[in-house]
Amino acid sequence: MAVDLAQEPDVAELARRTAEFVRDHVIGVEVEHGGVVPSDDVRAHLQQAAKDAGVFAPHVSAEFGGHGLDMRGRAAVFEEAGYSLLGPLALNIAAPDEGNMHMLEAIATPAQKERYLRPLASGEVRSCFAMTEPAPGAGSDPAALTTRAERVDGGWRINGRKWFITGAEGAGFTICMARTSGEPGDAGGATMFLVEEDNPGLKVVRHIETLDESLYGGHIELEFDDCVVPDEAVLGEVDQGFRYAQVRLGPARMTHCMRWLGIARRAQDIAVARAAERRLFGSRLGDLGMVQQMIADNEIDIAASRGLILRACWELDRGEHASQSTSIAKTFCAEAIWRVVDRSIQICGSLGISGDLLLGRFLREVRPFRVYDGPSETHRWAIARRVLRRHEKNAR
Amino acid sequence: MAVDLAQEPDVAELARRTAEFVRDHVIGVEVEHGGVVPSDDVRAHLQQAAKDAGVFAPHVSAEFGGHGLDMRGRAAVFEEAGYSLLGPLALNIAAPDEGNMHMLEAIATPAQKERYLRPLASGEVRSCFAMTEPAPGAGSDPAALTTRAERVDGGWRINGRKWFITGAEGAGFTICMARTSGEPGDAGGATMFLVEEDNPGLKVVRHIETLDESLYGGHIELEFDDCVVPDEAVLGEVDQGFRYAQVRLGPARMTHCMRWLGIARRAQDIAVARAAERRLFGSRLGDLGMVQQMIADNEIDIAASRGLILRACWELDRGEHASQSTSIAKTFCAEAIWRVVDRSIQICGSLGISGDLLLGRFLREVRPFRVYDGPSETHRWAIARRVLRRHEKNAR
Amino acid sequence: MAVDLAQEPDVAELARRTAEFVRDHVIGVEVEHGGVVPSDDVRAHLQQAAKDAGVFAPHVSAEFGGHGLDMRGRAAVFEEAGYSLLGPLALNIAAPDEGNMHMLEAIATPAQKERYLRPLASGEVRSCFAMTEPAPGAGSDPAALTTRAERVDGGWRINGRKWFITGAEGAGFTICMARTSGEPGDAGGATMFLVEEDNPGLKVVRHIETLDESLYGGHIELEFDDCVVPDEAVLGEVDQGFRYAQVRLGPARMTHCMRWLGIARRAQDIAVARAAERRLFGSRLGDLGMVQQMIADNEIDIAASRGLILRACWELDRGEHASQSTSIAKTFCAEAIWRVVDRSIQICGSLGISGDLLLGRFLREVRPFRVYDGPSETHRWAIARRVLRRHEKNAR
Amino acid sequence: MAVDLAQEPDVAELARRTAEFVRDHVIGVEVEHGGVVPSDDVRAHLQQAAKDAGVFAPHVSAEFGGHGLDMRGRAAVFEEAGYSLLGPLALNIAAPDEGNMHMLEAIATPAQKERYLRPLASGEVRSCFAMTEPAPGAGSDPAALTTRAERVDGGWRINGRKWFITGAEGAGFTICMARTSGEPGDAGGATMFLVEEDNPGLKVVRHIETLDESLYGGHIELEFDDCVVPDEAVLGEVDQGFRYAQVRLGPARMTHCMRWLGIARRAQDIAVARAAERRLFGSRLGDLGMVQQMIADNEIDIAASRGLILRACWELDRGEHASQSTSIAKTFCAEAIWRVVDRSIQICGSLGISGDLLLGRFLREVRPFRVYDGPSETHRWAIARRVLRRHEKNAR
Repeated sequence: MAVDLAQEPDVAELARRTAEFVRDHVIGVEVEHGGVVPSDDVRAHLQQAAKDAGVFAPHVSAEFGGHGLDMRGRAAVFEEAGYSLLGPLALNIAAPDEGNMHMLEAIATPAQKERYLRPLASGEVRSCFAMTEPAPGAGSDPAALTTRAERVDGGWRINGRKWFITGAEGAGFTICMARTSGEPGDAGGATMFLVEEDNPGLKVVRHIETLDESLYGGHIELEFDDCVVPDEAVLGEVDQGFRYAQVRLGPARMTHCMRWLGIARRAQDIAVARAAERRLFGSRLGDLGMVQQMIADNEIDIAASRGLILRACWELDRGEHASQSTSIAKTFCAEAIWRVVDRSIQICGSLGISGDLLLGRFLREVRPFRVYDGPSETHRWAIARRVLRRHEKNAR
Repeated sequence: MAVDLAQEPDVAELARRTAEFVRDHVIGVEVEHGGVVPSDDVRAHLQQAAKDAGVFAPHVSAEFGGHGLDMRGRAAVFEEAGYSLLGPLALNIAAPDEGNMHMLEAIATPAQKERYLRPLASGEVRSCFAMTEPAPGAGSDPAALTTRAERVDGGWRINGRKWFITGAEGAGFTICMARTSGEPGDAGGATMFLVEEDNPGLKVVRHIETLDESLYGGHIELEFDDCVVPDEAVLGEVDQGFRYAQVRLGPARMTHCMRWLGIARRAQDIAVARAAERRLFGSRLGDLGMVQQMIADNEIDIAASRGLILRACWELDRGEHASQSTSIAKTFCAEAIWRVVDRSIQICGSLGISGDLLLGRFLREVRPFRVYDGPSETHRWAIARRVLRRHEKNAR
Repeated sequence: MAVDLAQEPDVAELARRTAEFVRDHVIGVEVEHGGVVPSDDVRAHLQQAAKDAGVFAPHVSAEFGGHGLDMRGRAAVFEEAGYSLLGPLALNIAAPDEGNMHMLEAIATPAQKERYLRPLASGEVRSCFAMTEPAPGAGSDPAALTTRAERVDGGWRINGRKWFITGAEGAGFTICMARTSGEPGDAGGATMFLVEEDNPGLKVVRHIETLDESLYGGHIELEFDDCVVPDEAVLGEVDQGFRYAQVRLGPARMTHCMRWLGIARRAQDIAVARAAERRLFGSRLGDLGMVQQMIADNEIDIAASRGLILRACWELDRGEHASQSTSIAKTFCAEAIWRVVDRSIQICGSLGISGDLLLGRFLREVRPFRVYDGPSETHRWAIARRVLRRHEKNAR
Repeated sequence: MAVDLAQEPDVAELARRTAEFVRDHVIGVEVEHGGVVPSDDVRAHLQQAAKDAGVFAPHVSAEFGGHGLDMRGRAAVFEEAGYSLLGPLALNIAAPDEGNMHMLEAIATPAQKERYLRPLASGEVRSCFAMTEPAPGAGSDPAALTTRAERVDGGWRINGRKWFITGAEGAGFTICMARTSGEPGDAGGATMFLVEEDNPGLKVVRHIETLDESLYGGHIELEFDDCVVPDEAVLGEVDQGFRYAQVRLGPARMTHCMRWLGIARRAQDIAVARAAERRLFGSRLGDLGMVQQMIADNEIDIAASRGLILRACWELDRGEHASQSTSIAKTFCAEAIWRVVDRSIQICGSLGISGDLLLGRFLREVRPFRVYDGPSETHRWAIARRVLRRHEKNAR
């Protein structure tokens, strides 16, 4: 039982077929629409194609129509799906649905699974995860949570404002994190609620314009205004919301990395193709030292990202919290992927910043990853704190 | 006569008034339109306001309605104008018009000045500079120029394709660089031609989508298709085009730096305002070490950029070619300004990537500066070559 | 058989015991002597202690007294040994002996193994590998090899000059790479020769002073002056030297990375201990954001290095050439380790540059790793070339 | 009175002669001794040569035998002196003597000037500045000062420990900073004392080994053990020590930058010479893109450093505190100079890390500059704080 980096044969095969599917069925649509899915029709068309190709919902258990991949398997398959901005949507593994499915499988009741997970896993509905709040609420510091749910007869009444809620436009349901005990600043006391689209207490305040535009359903500001939900809307146990958020966050962090790593590889491939064909100053672009340096640094960043993702996934699959390794992987990948896309643009010159290639679009899409799911600074702080605590423990 | 870094009093005063003008009359319009001037009306309105404020066309000689600033003076004033994406357009010092005015003043005949420079300097018409060609034509390597002008009776016939021609949409005239002798790859043999908007041989092929969108008149692909111009359309002397391009390029490189330095300062101010007000983890954002590091690095990058610009401008004002110092300043500034905007976004977190602030827009606008006017790699190559040549000369 | 990152239990146990041995028996000696082994006595003492602890020569097969670790196993154990500058010498896995043992096991004849490998594996003698030559000979470009071996009756006569030959002072034998066919610049035509210490044709020209000083036996300039060796001195086949050098270089690259990764971890531990105890501006040093950033970046660099090493080792153990993955790992690790040591110094402030801590010594020792075994630039060039070739192959 | 970057003619001439002097009289000695002055004889010989060449003590007023250069003038001349590690000692402008002369001229009484400044300015004696203390005393945070001076009859009794006191070995006198009121942590309450070499209360505890070795007189740990000094030993006014330290620190920060900038230029020249002559892979080293990139980045770093130094010097010469501009310049220069030396080594490959060139020595000498005179982190913190305060002031 030595160290082994080979994926299981069926995972490798699924990854190969996913790559093929993306190349044959997704990239054409992506290029046509400049990387942004324009309508539910296109979304439905892509998802049907993924079902036909047998690559749909690879992370969901067979019971709900998927392939039941563990985190290591996802690392292989999601990277291939992420090779196009539209690949994750096609496979139904885009954020935030993918993380929500992961969490629902882990903690929902059987009835909740039937009602929410099944249509979500099939692509029939979409969902969102309403956590982040405008200042001074929950942002980089989740404990600042201010949205509040109060006991009412047979259920709860939620009040509060959320923003940057990805995918909320048109989502069939929202998983809302609200404070059920304690005060803003307290570490615990949060509960997750399943809020349906037609709940009159749930209001879309506005669509927030952002640098990125490819996440389907946008980034939305929501208001929960005397939003009443029944007891069955509680996901998991009352006051355990932060603990469940961890269940969601560690893996979700990694699946973000996997998908964006696919885009990094794509950017590199576009740049390398350009470097192989373009001639400048009597040389092939790819024979100029500074271009070679950028190509090599891309390759290094991609390889290092992949190694860190795999390490964290292996730990997660062993049932570990993997807080340190997911923080490390997330921080490195978010910055490395950004560098890769940026260098790829530089290699392609003015073409790189034009719409003739998708690189400018990629740059816009990956920039926010250094901010969401914990800004790099927050992760670095957490990483250092754990190192110092480890030192203190050893020193005792 | 020791080293003195103080601007002349009247320049300092003009810079101060420009800053005031931008703050009071431009930023509101910029925010309203998300950083992109939507119409000629808005452009005309802004320019009129600049005229009223007495800050219009500061680089043009008094004869043509300006303040006659030398390069050092422009360094002070353009940076203030650049504090808003719309400031340069308001002052009529945006690319490419500003560089074209500079060149026309230097080399046009009196008749050409009346016909082209005067309306350009007053903002009545806009212009463009058609140099860059699709591969394998003139890009990073100007000598690859393939657009050709042949002698015809009483004039010239131009054929060729140009792209990424900034501001070409709606430009009253185009300064077109075409080969009048030699073959692609030859160092000389280019001539500049003044081609008017209504010339039937000048065709807009398409508007090229790019990451940046704030340069008025877009980035255009043009075709010169048997485009016949009279002898009076020759700007400067036949076959001296590359030499004139140098006249334009050195200063134009610096004015780009000045304007974008303004945006870097603006981004820093936005980030600092946010860091001063936002609280996180029980601290003010601006009291967290990693945020302080980003603020400090921004400050350092801005100061270093300013120093390099001033050095190059001083050399240019002394009549030196300043090839090395403008290459150094351009390379450093393009990268430093990019870093400043990127760090400012990071400081502001999710707000930084949203349209609620203009930082994402700034990021899109400054990215191309590392590519146009010579990609960083081309400048580094040129810088190193000059260093090596200097060494060889000294070694002899 | 899914991806598994757990080391085999006996490897994990050997790594654990190695860590213990280094902590209990090596670090004291290292600190006493400032990181540089002062004499053969100290070397012998350390090696005896390693034998007593059962951790000696872990990479050599049992037949020659070792533990027969494959590359993945070495990754775990060598990193622990490398936690002290003296650990590798104590375990007899220091460069260049370790790489020479690896190569001798792979290609020497049984007689050569008895004569050279056995005493080398037991620590009785040391060895060196004479490849690099002064300009214009073999450096970053091995094909430039100029040292020449000519056929003489019953053997070969070697003439040429080598420099930066690590460990040559006092080495019992030298493996000399010499050209037996072709001309400098040709890709093939090299042969390896085993030259014994007392060969009158082998002369130490000088001890080259270098920034690093901890590699035992120094960096030496050697002259082969009509150095005659018998036919039995040929290691492997005639004219196959470059191929064998690859056998040595890939793994040797990785074992360098492993050992230096140990020093990076050590530097981080020293810095973290300091950050945990030192107070500044009313805070613990480790609570200041910029210090936390350095600690976190160290942790990230260490984790990413380890992942890249493991990937390359796994490929090597599968019998692959692993040229790309060893180049990637070497380039990244050499730079990451350097950054870690540099940041650790910065965290410790003036103490960090003093002899009171060993960090300044570490900095001196790791700097050359970005140059030897192929400078980063050569590896980046090779990495990019392979990427471009892969693209061309796929494009066909 | 526009911006002017030309040095006054006599300053330019002195800089030219200094460069000539260093080339003709200093570099030979430097190379012979590996960059470290071995004895007072060599020091005396170098200083006599500087006197003969008319370039000695350029910063001291004519009254004390110098040229009376202001800070801008020093920027030009010190950079030339710094082109060799031994240049500053030869000109008597090495740390800490140079800063001490600056301060003595500014605040000493006429009698103190005669007794201390005159022999110091002539090179007859050396001096040191005893400020830094072991933790938890004054380090990055001067207010933590714990060395204490108590009133005794006719003078003061000093007790405390200082370390990293540069040049203390053999110094004729020490300027000791001690607390005369308040407690450690208080912002004020320090006084400067002139303590002579033969004072029985002043003891050298030990010579601290450091990465750098070229500052004459070493880095020393000192003990003030009931060290009694007369009232005339007070430098400036009682309790005003921190204010005077600022007088010394701002300019001293800049003169460090100037001298090390000279070394950066030297490193670049060594690397460029190598790049011009060495051939690799069929090209001249200097024609390889990655090498050109390093050469260009060196050139950019040097130019940017020079610009920042000049800005700070100009402000200092105008009588401003220049805290922000000296912090910016110091932080950037310390890191830029380090990068330049590091890249120069990389360009030269194995030769770069050998004693055959002095680059490894330079690397060791410049590394501490990122720590002393305020670590980069402390300066960044101070820079950011000033930016935030400026924002708050403007916001009001």
